[in-house]
Amino acid sequence: MLLSQIKGPGDLKSCSIEELTPLAAEIRQFLIEKLSVTGGHLASNLGVVELTMALHYCYNSPQDKFIFDVGHQAYVHKILTGRMDRFDTLRKQNGLCGFVKRCESDHDVWEAGHSSTSLSAAMGMALARDLKGEHHKVVAIIGDGALTGGMAFEALNHIGHEKKDLMVILNDNEMSIAPNVGAMHNYLTKIRSDRNYLRAKDEVEQLLKKIPAIGGKLAKTAERVKDSLKYLMVSGVLFEELGFKYLGPVDGHDLPGLIDSFNQANNVSGPVLVHVLTTKGKGYTPAEEDSYKWHGITPYKIESGQVLKAVGNPMYTDVFGQTLIELAEQDERIVAVTPAMPGGSGLVKFAQRFPERMIDVGIAEQHAATMCAALAMEGMKPVFAVYSTFMQRAYDQIVHDICRHNANVMFAIDRAGFVGADGETHQGVFDIAFLRHIPNIVLMMPKDENELRHMMKTALDYNDGPIAYRYPRVNVPGVPMDEKLVPIPIGSWEMLREGEGPVIMAVGPMIQVAEEAVETLKREGIQATVVNARFLKPLDEGMLLSLAQSGSKMIVLEEASQAGSLGSAVLEFYADHGLSGLDISLMGVPDRFIEHGSIKEQLQEVGLTADAVVREVQQFRSGQQFAFGKKVKPS
Amino acid sequence: MLLSQIKGPGDLKSCSIEELTPLAAEIRQFLIEKLSVTGGHLASNLGVVELTMALHYCYNSPQDKFIFDVGHQAYVHKILTGRMDRFDTLRKQNGLCGFVKRCESDHDVWEAGHSSTSLSAAMGMALARDLKGEHHKVVAIIGDGALTGGMAFEALNHIGHEKKDLMVILNDNEMSIAPNVGAMHNYLTKIRSDRNYLRAKDEVEQLLKKIPAIGGKLAKTAERVKDSLKYLMVSGVLFEELGFKYLGPVDGHDLPGLIDSFNQANNVSGPVLVHVLTTKGKGYTPAEEDSYKWHGITPYKIESGQVLKAVGNPMYTDVFGQTLIELAEQDERIVAVTPAMPGGSGLVKFAQRFPERMIDVGIAEQHAATMCAALAMEGMKPVFAVYSTFMQRAYDQIVHDICRHNANVMFAIDRAGFVGADGETHQGVFDIAFLRHIPNIVLMMPKDENELRHMMKTALDYNDGPIAYRYPRVNVPGVPMDEKLVPIPIGSWEMLREGEGPVIMAVGPMIQVAEEAVETLKREGIQATVVNARFLKPLDEGMLLSLAQSGSKMIVLEEASQAGSLGSAVLEFYADHGLSGLDISLMGVPDRFIEHGSIKEQLQEVGLTADAVVREVQQFRSGQQFAFGKKVKPS
Repeated sequence: MLLSQIKGPGDLKSCSIEELTPLAAEIRQFLIEKLSVTGGHLASNLGVVELTMALHYCYNSPQDKFIFDVGHQAYVHKILTGRMDRFDTLRKQNGLCGFVKRCESDHDVWEAGHSSTSLSAAMGMALARDLKGEHHKVVAIIGDGALTGGMAFEALNHIGHEKKDLMVILNDNEMSIAPNVGAMHNYLTKIRSDRNYLRAKDEVEQLLKKIPAIGGKLAKTAERVKDSLKYLMVSGVLFEELGFKYLGPVDGHDLPGLIDSFNQANNVSGPVLVHVLTTKGKGYTPAEEDSYKWHGITPYKIESGQVLKAVGNPMYTDVFGQTLIELAEQDERIVAVTPAMPGGSGLVKFAQRFPERMIDVGIAEQHAATMCAALAMEGMKPVFAVYSTFMQRAYDQIVHDICRHNANVMFAIDRAGFVGADGETHQGVFDIAFLRHIPNIVLMMPKDENELRHMMKTALDYNDGPIAYRYPRVNVPGVPMDEKLVPIPIGSWEMLREGEGPVIMAVGPMIQVAEEAVETLKREGIQATVVNARFLKPLDEGMLLSLAQSGSKMIVLEEASQAGSLGSAVLEFYADHGLSGLDISLMGVPDRFIEHGSIKEQLQEVGLTADAVVREVQQFRSGQQFAFGKKVKPS
Repeated sequence: MLLSQIKGPGDLKSCSIEELTPLAAEIRQFLIEKLSVTGGHLASNLGVVELTMALHYCYNSPQDKFIFDVGHQAYVHKILTGRMDRFDTLRKQNGLCGFVKRCESDHDVWEAGHSSTSLSAAMGMALARDLKGEHHKVVAIIGDGALTGGMAFEALNHIGHEKKDLMVILNDNEMSIAPNVGAMHNYLTKIRSDRNYLRAKDEVEQLLKKIPAIGGKLAKTAERVKDSLKYLMVSGVLFEELGFKYLGPVDGHDLPGLIDSFNQANNVSGPVLVHVLTTKGKGYTPAEEDSYKWHGITPYKIESGQVLKAVGNPMYTDVFGQTLIELAEQDERIVAVTPAMPGGSGLVKFAQRFPERMIDVGIAEQHAATMCAALAMEGMKPVFAVYSTFMQRAYDQIVHDICRHNANVMFAIDRAGFVGADGETHQGVFDIAFLRHIPNIVLMMPKDENELRHMMKTALDYNDGPIAYRYPRVNVPGVPMDEKLVPIPIGSWEMLREGEGPVIMAVGPMIQVAEEAVETLKREGIQATVVNARFLKPLDEGMLLSLAQSGSKMIVLEEASQAGSLGSAVLEFYADHGLSGLDISLMGVPDRFIEHGSIKEQLQEVGLTADAVVREVQQFRSGQQFAFGKKVKPS
């Protein structure tokens, strides 16, 4: 067992090239075994075993900086930098992070989670290095999918111009999470299939010799013809035109070939791009055969490749996907737009049913949002299906193109709230705060799957501007479903339980937390009121005014940034109406980033539990600050 | 006078080609005369006179859709679509908008203000057209500067893949507002300088004939050599590789040539890019000679080209630029980063003094932000100088790369608050609301230029994460300046005037409004308190607690979105501390987009004036809701 002797990159470097191939096999075996228990990003990591080994073999981390785009493909890097023994804790609370994490190792120099940031990071590091007069290498490792994100192009454009020493490794596996789309993908595919061109190099040179020597006016032209032949030799014209030296394509599973290429790249001054062809899932047949399914995977049986799925209700995502098909059957204006997440967003069946009305733009949230505005302005009913965290990328386009145009765009905001194992880069806790202040938008969240379906109908029937429904990354509660979908009046909240004591305004899964708290309070003789604050914007002004009359303690309970979300909206409303003297507690996500763990652990960590709600009420009571039904001023 | 007969595109179409050239001259004269009085975007519009005329000549607006990127170059379009008589009101309140505006004309189908959105819009319109079975043309007109914005590339990537019928006119004037940077710019320059290649076409064909006929193994290679010669014929390889048919480069001031090219493009099915070379400021010597200065211009004397500048104090921008030089003299870690706005951000002198430490990334806010994170993580002290409105583009990068990494990035947020004539697309009223909920960030705003300088020192000395100072697009008040720059304690507010009556917490220029209101109130015997709430995050908790003890009416006064900004923060703070019973009025920007006009008019429109503050206090008094110093509960 070679692998057990690798405690750091130094141990890898001391291996002979012959030892590397068996080591690669051991790393694959390790990944397949460990992830069969913990789950995780298997396919992408199996694809970069040799690539990562060659990097550590040719460069000196951490002096040389490795910047992994997204960072979910850094497991091999973690293995090679002394973190092998922590893989049992992968993506668990206080365990090994599923992405690059600086607090874990000096070899982790840049964290991500969202795609397409690595080239900008590399440029920053290269600039800093040169300004400080240092001499290390900076290497960005980016997938072909991530390369389609606009900011990656912004960085290419800047890097190619500034000519800094900087290496980009294009890990081309023809996939983001889903198969890639886009012209860049087509271009890379062409390079892949044109590999024979390289072999023709000698033949071309022979041919050139046959062109007779020419003098006079034609000489210059002849030179240009010869110049133009570089396009035969160099596959990566597009990158060369952008100022990069292009090397490749290189077989990403051929260790000696990779090492050669990296050494060659090392001798290039200025920006260089090494195009490496890898196979997602390499070495594990089930993952090779369906790398899409095996991108991020739950625990599985190694032999059969059978994925162990938790039994339970469907996810909100599934209900969304199914309902969208139903609505689209009846309304041909509906178009679904996804930024490279057809599967994650529950749109696979929709795509099969309505291929013409399913638009996967690749990793391109900004373009997706603005395109939706134009679709809406031309009378279509686009649904921009996007994770809350990735929606952050389109903030300006939502303000400037969708809301300012008051375009009838529908947003299906998935993964709203905590997301569990993906951790702090993926938490969907900011969207209420970053959307609520934008004029014209309507923002909803359902308490269950039945209400989600009504909200989708509400959004479809709404023709006065942008409207969003957000839903969490959890299984639905499994409530009875209404047959007929009926629009919910815009801005109407729902009184779920009318008590006499404290008022709990809650939204989404927090309603279940509130209900649980209410049961406990009931045993103490406290009859609490529970309101489903399903419209985050606009608020139910009538209900808020009537709730204020009770003078009861109020709690606003939401799985969202406490700053700027529903709680703030309620406070603003009462302030605007001159209603002072109300005791309102905000219970939301505190002002810090929440790391990976289970969703339950994350809720516990921030105190979004029934117990915490009960304590909030009890604390208030013991402080003698109020008696139910009437207000007593604190002295 | 031909121009006076042009009431719409139909009148243009009925002109003979010979008549177009004198018409172009009349349009130029019109623009030069009108803008000498109103100011506006002169240089860019002089550059597109023939381009816009050729568009309306070859296509049928509004059936065919013209999508102007940014839209500040649509004056000629406005002239040709019946809005000539409104140019006296350009960029004035209720007057002609400086950008494309749908409510002005059916010919205005897409509004912008921020750059790089036109290709996404065109794609949305083309998709909608095809889904609806319609057949009109969709034409995006985009500058070479805007093409560097990441979302433009996202759109190119999608368009090139989907092969929709869609025309892109690349208006290449080698400028954004400032001279362009970036590899794409270098590439376009190469095409410009390679125009002779086109003339060589015949010569190349002659040369090809000289290659002897070859059989056998070499035949295929010979074919490839000939294939590769297309790179000689077609300048736009990069665009061709991305799936576009490239036509050009075309002289953008040669009307018959433009008309030919557009007709040719019209016959291409699938996406086509016409590369048009234009000269900013064309036809007006001062503007041609310094198109940077003449991009957006105040009124001027036509004969001399002398720009009439209002006499007054310097702008905050100038104080920022000057102070940054002073700080950078003493601290070589300071690096200034701008997304294509070196002039607008006051960094021209900085760039001359520290060329190595001035980084203009082009229109690329996302890349700029993430690169800043990396610079900071490597020990530099980057200052991301960005307009509030354009900062919206980098929201995700600020969350994910800067704040999550807790990187020591300094933000100089210019144009915070209302911006005047640029109107609703450029208002800087959201940044407090979209930044405040992000963990780790510190957010400040000075009351005057002296405090701005201290804040810049505060930011430089702060080493615990990201820190921002925001300042408005106005002249500084002209206060005495301290010689020594001293850091302000983080989170400390300033008591400016301690009264006994209502408390006004204000920030930035609103402090002057508050002071003015206080003078009026004093005459009524009311002694108000004024607090400089210079830290928007973190708040001054001590001062807030002590202010609460007074029990006075409170007003939070800010030139920012009332939802989610300082007012909300104050309400949240008091709610968190169980302090109910406080009467707090929020005075901020209401929940709608505010159109162009002067800043003063915009403040008036939303009620952010001294009079309004006085009324707010008076209304409260007359409502008998409080007596100074003690609280009386409303019944």
